[in-house]
Amino acid sequence: MGIWDHKGGKEVKFTLNCSLIFNKPLKGVNLKNLIKDSSTVLAKGAPKGEGARIAKSELKGDRLDLRITSGRYVRPHDAVFRLKNLLSEELGKRYRVGIREIKAKKYKIEFDVEKEPKKKVSLPFAKRIEFDGKRCVLELQNLNEEFLRKNYVDRMINLINEKIEKQYYEGKEEHWELIWQSEEKKPVWESNPSGEMEKRNWIMHRGRGQWIFGPTVTKIVKTMEQIVVDKLLKPLDVNEVIIPKAVTWDVWKKSGHAKNLYGEIYYLCPPKSRDPEFWEEVTDIYKITGGVPGKLIKEKIKEPIGGVCYAQCPPFWPYLAGKTIADESLPMKVFDRSGTSMRYESGGIHGIERVDEFHRIEIVWIGYPDQVKKLHRGIVEQYKKIFNEILDLEWRMAWVTPWFMAQEGLTGLIDEKREVGTIDFEAYLPYKGSREESEWLEFQNASNNGDKYPKGFNVKSQSKEQLYSGCTGIGLERWLAAFLAQKGLDPENWPGRFRKRLGKLPEEIKFL
Amino acid sequence: MGIWDHKGGKEVKFTLNCSLIFNKPLKGVNLKNLIKDSSTVLAKGAPKGEGARIAKSELKGDRLDLRITSGRYVRPHDAVFRLKNLLSEELGKRYRVGIREIKAKKYKIEFDVEKEPKKKVSLPFAKRIEFDGKRCVLELQNLNEEFLRKNYVDRMINLINEKIEKQYYEGKEEHWELIWQSEEKKPVWESNPSGEMEKRNWIMHRGRGQWIFGPTVTKIVKTMEQIVVDKLLKPLDVNEVIIPKAVTWDVWKKSGHAKNLYGEIYYLCPPKSRDPEFWEEVTDIYKITGGVPGKLIKEKIKEPIGGVCYAQCPPFWPYLAGKTIADESLPMKVFDRSGTSMRYESGGIHGIERVDEFHRIEIVWIGYPDQVKKLHRGIVEQYKKIFNEILDLEWRMAWVTPWFMAQEGLTGLIDEKREVGTIDFEAYLPYKGSREESEWLEFQNASNNGDKYPKGFNVKSQSKEQLYSGCTGIGLERWLAAFLAQKGLDPENWPGRFRKRLGKLPEEIKFL
Repeated sequence: MGIWDHKGGKEVKFTLNCSLIFNKPLKGVNLKNLIKDSSTVLAKGAPKGEGARIAKSELKGDRLDLRITSGRYVRPHDAVFRLKNLLSEELGKRYRVGIREIKAKKYKIEFDVEKEPKKKVSLPFAKRIEFDGKRCVLELQNLNEEFLRKNYVDRMINLINEKIEKQYYEGKEEHWELIWQSEEKKPVWESNPSGEMEKRNWIMHRGRGQWIFGPTVTKIVKTMEQIVVDKLLKPLDVNEVIIPKAVTWDVWKKSGHAKNLYGEIYYLCPPKSRDPEFWEEVTDIYKITGGVPGKLIKEKIKEPIGGVCYAQCPPFWPYLAGKTIADESLPMKVFDRSGTSMRYESGGIHGIERVDEFHRIEIVWIGYPDQVKKLHRGIVEQYKKIFNEILDLEWRMAWVTPWFMAQEGLTGLIDEKREVGTIDFEAYLPYKGSREESEWLEFQNASNNGDKYPKGFNVKSQSKEQLYSGCTGIGLERWLAAFLAQKGLDPENWPGRFRKRLGKLPEEIKFL
Repeated sequence: MGIWDHKGGKEVKFTLNCSLIFNKPLKGVNLKNLIKDSSTVLAKGAPKGEGARIAKSELKGDRLDLRITSGRYVRPHDAVFRLKNLLSEELGKRYRVGIREIKAKKYKIEFDVEKEPKKKVSLPFAKRIEFDGKRCVLELQNLNEEFLRKNYVDRMINLINEKIEKQYYEGKEEHWELIWQSEEKKPVWESNPSGEMEKRNWIMHRGRGQWIFGPTVTKIVKTMEQIVVDKLLKPLDVNEVIIPKAVTWDVWKKSGHAKNLYGEIYYLCPPKSRDPEFWEEVTDIYKITGGVPGKLIKEKIKEPIGGVCYAQCPPFWPYLAGKTIADESLPMKVFDRSGTSMRYESGGIHGIERVDEFHRIEIVWIGYPDQVKKLHRGIVEQYKKIFNEILDLEWRMAWVTPWFMAQEGLTGLIDEKREVGTIDFEAYLPYKGSREESEWLEFQNASNNGDKYPKGFNVKSQSKEQLYSGCTGIGLERWLAAFLAQKGLDPENWPGRFRKRLGKLPEEIKFL
């Protein structure tokens, strides 16, 4: 549905007060006729009688003040450029006068929104946003040419509707629908493994939600990684790739993350200069005071180029962007385990189950819709085997709001056919309380992302049929948290199949 | 050598003009005697007649203006606190008056520097730095109590000497001394592998010095990694650990990097808030304009908490900091390959041989000096086997300025005994020109870092003997660059022992 196709509402009404600024005063020029002539141009493409209209015009030296009005067709921010072109040509030829600039003092748009707002809506650039039921008056002031030309107005109207829609979602929970549940397993203990591991020097907390993993825990995690290799990546013939972990804005624009993620990003800022002299004041202050001057450093770094990897697959997509994949390469399956992801998580005390820096194996697959669906299901089956037969976990699967929608701030949306969307894998954490009342840990997900990424990054198939893609992230800290919360820290109590793969635990470093 | 032990120079001379601010005007109080009495306190610890002296004192309402002078003993910034304590006690008892604050209007220090400066020296906090030969007059103005108490003045004098020393180093090359060289090997081609790989879609450039590695190159890199595991890590029984990749200032203070590295860091800034409302303006602007508002985002992020991993071992050391390692755990050997490092490299066009984001396997070992020396040599021997017998490289080893000194901006310093220091491994890049005149690629190093890290992080041995440590970083992009530059892209031309380990190359993704 287009933004103007509201049924039953009153018509949209645009009123733009703007000025064309000439490069010199226009003396003795009769603009009246020229402006009258422009009505053809301003009506082009609109149904008869519904083009833009110049309601008022007044020449003041080097400035032509205009009031342009319209309904839904040839809106004033288009019309003013049509007029500019027409006048430029005529005035250039006849009087050697050019139009230097367009300025708009006031732009008023009256339109109907889709739903009645529940509370105030505010927007940048907007001087006034007022509602009477569904009728909205949006008023902008002091706009420049770029603002008009780039069609910001349409996007502002969209955004008002989006914000109202969000008011209706607020407080609603994400979609969550159980699709499978393992049998109950008797936990060997009910302690929080993070605290116990800290006591044993297995792990050490650093900074904010960061951990150093000593040899024992690393061995456990690497064994889990090897299980993924043996039981998932090799059987499915997934090729390893290396995806950058510094993610630039262009990627997040195309992946949709630029719409929402700002509160959880670790931003990456390069220095403004590599020159040691540029940094001498900072190093001097450090050497004199022993303190790192954070405020001064912030002045000496550039604006963020993006941030550290958040979702792992988006920065792979430029490798495919704008290309057509040959059918023989489909379905394409790759995985990455080349570095850390970071998220600025909520504060408070967390263990390894909620960390700011974490390690994830990410698998991405791309193909025709059926190929993607089949792979999604195949991967879920492999996971099931791993969790049931090797890790012996108590866990469940749920159909949830697709992760990319959740990360763009959209909730409650779900594919009724259960094809495109995300399956969350959740494990019971005995130390958090009863099965029924405690929060289970999302330790894994697997998604069919539909056409989202192939469209966002413009990746095409040989047959021109729309490509789909899927991805699944294996958070190793989460696997570890789930496993140890259920099975404890004593390998004696771990499932035999896992122990066999683990082998002997390394000697811990002994401290006096 | 202490900072005051200059031989043959004139004596150092301090003159501090400061004020003690009382919490109310001192009326009818005779301070003269109190000040006279203070001479004992101000001389304490100094040779007879060489303590600090109050050259002038004048009471003005709630303020006592002082001029305090001294030579090298009981410097005025110490003396003023001795006086403050004495007066506080007496005035508190007798008149219920307290000292609210110390302010210093002017602090003049005259002293001899170690070498005559070649050019101007500037420092933060300094109003004036002037030289007459080796005689320096340093003048500071408007200092607060903290500045005096924290002894910044001593560190400023050190820094002046350090800056002059640097003027003498400037332009000097780093120490470089050949210690071993392989025989010449006939290169199979003379092209730059990066350009060729881009043409084949093996790799794709991103952002600034970042690359996506497709399946073929990743397989080559992972084979190299496996060689390191089989030929180095397993034989030497090195345990894997996971080291954070977000490095916080506390680590770089202790590792010495806070002294110098600022021009090459990718800084990490968390958001000031996670609240979506806090970010609403940013998301609105993005949704309206399609542009990410970098300036506004920079205002909404915190000062950097540090940066992305630069040298890989420093962020492991907090795991050991302040602890005493049991003898049975020595030598301790660990390695990390859990994520990427980033460096803001010089601009211009580079291939995979000089990247901003890279992957490195880092090994760290800690032990008594003999253990560390033995391991360092053993590791070098293993590398030699890998490069000669498996990769068949043309390469050489050189004894160079220790890396941690180079990274702190110190050059030309070298251990004459060739024990503590860094060995660089360099490979010939045929596409860069002749063996003699082209720059070889440093693709590897191995260091005995002596007591630097155990001291910096306060790690102790059971026997109280000073611990040493060593580290070696295996830069996988560098290995790849060296290998492909010499051996080309066609596996037919690769050494048999490498090919055997490599197996079959994966199918590349085919684009139309």
